[in-house]
Amino acid sequence: MKTLRLLVCALALVAAPAFADTLIDNVQGVSVDREGRVTRFTGIWIDDEGRVKQLLDRKDKRPHAKFGVDGKGAVVVPGLIDSHLHIMELGFAALTLDLTDTRSLAEAQAKIRDYAAKYPDRKWIIGRGWNQEIWGLGRFPTAAEIDAVVPDRPVLLARVDGHAQWANSAALRAAGITAQTADPAGGRIERAAGTRAPAGVLVDNAKELAERVVPAPRPDEYDLALSKAQEILLAKGVTAAADMGTTIEAWQSMRRAGDLGWLRVRIMAYAAGVPAMELIGGPGPTPWLYGDRLRMGGVKLYLDGALGSRGAWLKAPYADDPKNTGLPLMDGTQLRNLMSRAALDKFQVAVHAIGDAANAEVLGAVEELSDTYKGDRRWRVEHAQIVDPADIARFGKNGVIASMQPIHQTSDRLMAEARLGQARLAGAYAWRSIAATGAPLAFGSDAPVEASDPFAGMAAAISRTGSDGQPFGGWMPGEAVGREAALAGYTSQGAYAGFAESRFGEIKPGLRADFIVIDRDPLLAAPQELRATRVLQTWVGGERIYVAGQVAVRRDSR
Amino acid sequence: MKTLRLLVCALALVAAPAFADTLIDNVQGVSVDREGRVTRFTGIWIDDEGRVKQLLDRKDKRPHAKFGVDGKGAVVVPGLIDSHLHIMELGFAALTLDLTDTRSLAEAQAKIRDYAAKYPDRKWIIGRGWNQEIWGLGRFPTAAEIDAVVPDRPVLLARVDGHAQWANSAALRAAGITAQTADPAGGRIERAAGTRAPAGVLVDNAKELAERVVPAPRPDEYDLALSKAQEILLAKGVTAAADMGTTIEAWQSMRRAGDLGWLRVRIMAYAAGVPAMELIGGPGPTPWLYGDRLRMGGVKLYLDGALGSRGAWLKAPYADDPKNTGLPLMDGTQLRNLMSRAALDKFQVAVHAIGDAANAEVLGAVEELSDTYKGDRRWRVEHAQIVDPADIARFGKNGVIASMQPIHQTSDRLMAEARLGQARLAGAYAWRSIAATGAPLAFGSDAPVEASDPFAGMAAAISRTGSDGQPFGGWMPGEAVGREAALAGYTSQGAYAGFAESRFGEIKPGLRADFIVIDRDPLLAAPQELRATRVLQTWVGGERIYVAGQVAVRRDSR
Repeated sequence: MKTLRLLVCALALVAAPAFADTLIDNVQGVSVDREGRVTRFTGIWIDDEGRVKQLLDRKDKRPHAKFGVDGKGAVVVPGLIDSHLHIMELGFAALTLDLTDTRSLAEAQAKIRDYAAKYPDRKWIIGRGWNQEIWGLGRFPTAAEIDAVVPDRPVLLARVDGHAQWANSAALRAAGITAQTADPAGGRIERAAGTRAPAGVLVDNAKELAERVVPAPRPDEYDLALSKAQEILLAKGVTAAADMGTTIEAWQSMRRAGDLGWLRVRIMAYAAGVPAMELIGGPGPTPWLYGDRLRMGGVKLYLDGALGSRGAWLKAPYADDPKNTGLPLMDGTQLRNLMSRAALDKFQVAVHAIGDAANAEVLGAVEELSDTYKGDRRWRVEHAQIVDPADIARFGKNGVIASMQPIHQTSDRLMAEARLGQARLAGAYAWRSIAATGAPLAFGSDAPVEASDPFAGMAAAISRTGSDGQPFGGWMPGEAVGREAALAGYTSQGAYAGFAESRFGEIKPGLRADFIVIDRDPLLAAPQELRATRVLQTWVGGERIYVAGQVAVRRDSR
Repeated sequence: MKTLRLLVCALALVAAPAFADTLIDNVQGVSVDREGRVTRFTGIWIDDEGRVKQLLDRKDKRPHAKFGVDGKGAVVVPGLIDSHLHIMELGFAALTLDLTDTRSLAEAQAKIRDYAAKYPDRKWIIGRGWNQEIWGLGRFPTAAEIDAVVPDRPVLLARVDGHAQWANSAALRAAGITAQTADPAGGRIERAAGTRAPAGVLVDNAKELAERVVPAPRPDEYDLALSKAQEILLAKGVTAAADMGTTIEAWQSMRRAGDLGWLRVRIMAYAAGVPAMELIGGPGPTPWLYGDRLRMGGVKLYLDGALGSRGAWLKAPYADDPKNTGLPLMDGTQLRNLMSRAALDKFQVAVHAIGDAANAEVLGAVEELSDTYKGDRRWRVEHAQIVDPADIARFGKNGVIASMQPIHQTSDRLMAEARLGQARLAGAYAWRSIAATGAPLAFGSDAPVEASDPFAGMAAAISRTGSDGQPFGGWMPGEAVGREAALAGYTSQGAYAGFAESRFGEIKPGLRADFIVIDRDPLLAAPQELRATRVLQTWVGGERIYVAGQVAVRRDSR
């Protein structure tokens, strides 16, 4: 693990300077509250604790601050909040060998060799993204072709579509796959020509034979992933995130980061199920820790699957699979029991619901449970992708938070049309309609499923178009939201969704001084320009943590 | 759980006053370093951080401190350190219904009723200590006799010797024990006269039928146990403790205590095995948290069992069981692998070894591993009860810490004589001989196995006699230690054993101001007087946490 540690140390490029009593002046400042009301200012006075002390207008007299920073007219907006991501998976994905851009087998081999050299202490080398068609290989690659560059350690590389794993001989050995191993049901072990010997590629259900022997990540690797994920987020201007499905292992890494001073991004953790919730939070949500940088406040539950794999639970069958309505992962009683168990101890409940039947079920459960669990509960529906128009008003009724991911709409639209048919799209990704009921709309990315890029998200949110500008005029453009609502969805609404609105989410006196310096005004830029926004600086709690191209996440002061 | 919470709140009798810049004057102060050198003083000046700023002699000029406390000539010694206990089990044991002092069935029923009323939200009522012989009952009690006072919830009460459980009807139902249930091998279900219906008492292996359905403690209950254990310790003058075998559930409770400000006793946690060590500590020991109140610095391993049950691993057979030598819980390779795994990441290793074969094995492992894991490792042997005289010198060779429990010697002596025979007692509880090799001697209680009572421990340590003063002149009195060594064993040596000597363990400038006010001088009192020492006040980090009869552990400020 020594190399991992050295690597982690190397990430701390510069010690973050602590700014006390600082005036950030000469900026074009923009902040937006939950109702979309915009505040503009030209200066921010930060106090000794890293909170905003005062916002200054052009005409205001400047205070005598200890430090001064000249913003040179740059645009400043609140630190962005990603209301739905998986922070460890984001980090792990970024640390995995990525072969997506390789154009030949030789190029892939070189990348595998370099990666192995970079991580000599990793017991397994895990990767993804290869495609023998792009390589012009005309056949699957073989174990021997990895052995030629990494003979000593298991290597396991997923094909670009996730439907096959390419293993070297060490991985086949570790998995116990031999000439005697039979193909599992629904899977195929590729065999060397004319023999039963495994050739190196495992298709579909045969993948599991190797995947199950890959060791779980070690604590060092969690720490590295958390560090890497923070780098990625800070570079995109994300200063706070809701982690959807925090395990005890992930939580321990977050606490190490907090204890040792390298937790930079604020994490609103939602435990991965009720047992993790009990183990992490105990008798209730944790307090805000480390100067409002970490809190486990709720639980993430899953009610259904996804649209792509037809696991989303629909009221009527899939248009492209007429015998299938998807299915719920638990029944209504189980859902209510888990929600009750969490609500009893004042944990916030966030339920994954994608199909219209799943959304209706969660909304019904909230309606029933709201009688028992009164007060400010902020029930959350995660995704809320396909909602029966008849159910949309139910979001507003109990102040249910719709935690939605604008990029999903642009990525999914053709698939959604196929799965649902035109007649059922009225309540699909229905941001504006849901918001119109009074339900808070919090935006996120679902990273690493999509990149955590709030500017791409805002561009989609206001235009209903993808990065290619398609479709012209936007997909069901009536569901686009205004620029103020889009920015609020990534700032003030995200804070509210995590019970953090008295701590961060806007640039205003009393809140943590979390803000970013960017190169254009998100309330003025055209969608495609907005998508191209560059983050120049990221500040968290009055400290400048990121300057374009340079991040300071980790201080290894143990 | 509401009642549990209320109870927990009620434990916080007074908010602990924070003492900043305080002069504790007019005391008879005593502190002792690891070599047994005594420092005497009459005043302690505490700084704003709760550390000792200066010790004052009678003749020294007094500083102008903000606060002053007149000690009225009382004796002050360092806060005591219990180097081996089980803090959660101590708390749970104290919270359990105790029927030991009941003289009749009616008295027991009254106690059960009162206890149930006190804890209306506890799903199960667990207790121990009944003895139908003392009650003069002439038969086992019945389920109906508990039903008469607690009909609604399962009640399960262990007999004083632990060989039977007395259950009410709800507990029998929960366990699924009916007239159809057969007696398990090695166990007996008592039956109602003339029928097969279970009568209420489950003997030996039949106990397990009910014990296995008792729910694991909830986080609330862990918190209550931790709070209760701290109360008990502070009232005995214990301000720091090594928790031997910390689970993730216990650790989470300790962190809650730290996060919310009710962690008072300093805890040096040793994880319950390597997986818990990895999960709690991650890539290495945690830092000291909460102002030196919590750290997970090592791992507790078990090499053998106990002498009483003949599980201790001996070089030659038991004197009272000539075919049995006890047995190791793992082989030498496994032990070295686990010790290596911990040492690799700089965790401290503490190995339970009671028999002479087990002690020799651990000492051998340390000798081998010391070549690889150099530096200041402070390998610990827990208990070191029976050591072959030929092995004693090996403690000194690698600075192995002997973590021993003086009260075990007085409780065990007759049993040890039976198990070992006179010829093998030369290295039994050999405090002085082990210390003479240069090995640090850290004293503890093994609570709740024995009470955590350092003054009783010191009395045993200097006299080799029990609370009855027996045997006259002491058991193998040559192994008694001096008074200074006994006090050091419960203070400076205990801190050293936990890598804490730069933080606490003595009263001296720069260390945390942990001290207790007591009613006699431990370096002067006769053994029986020393045992009767009263703790008048307990101070931790410059805060007075305990005043005889009144404890302030918990602040429920979530």
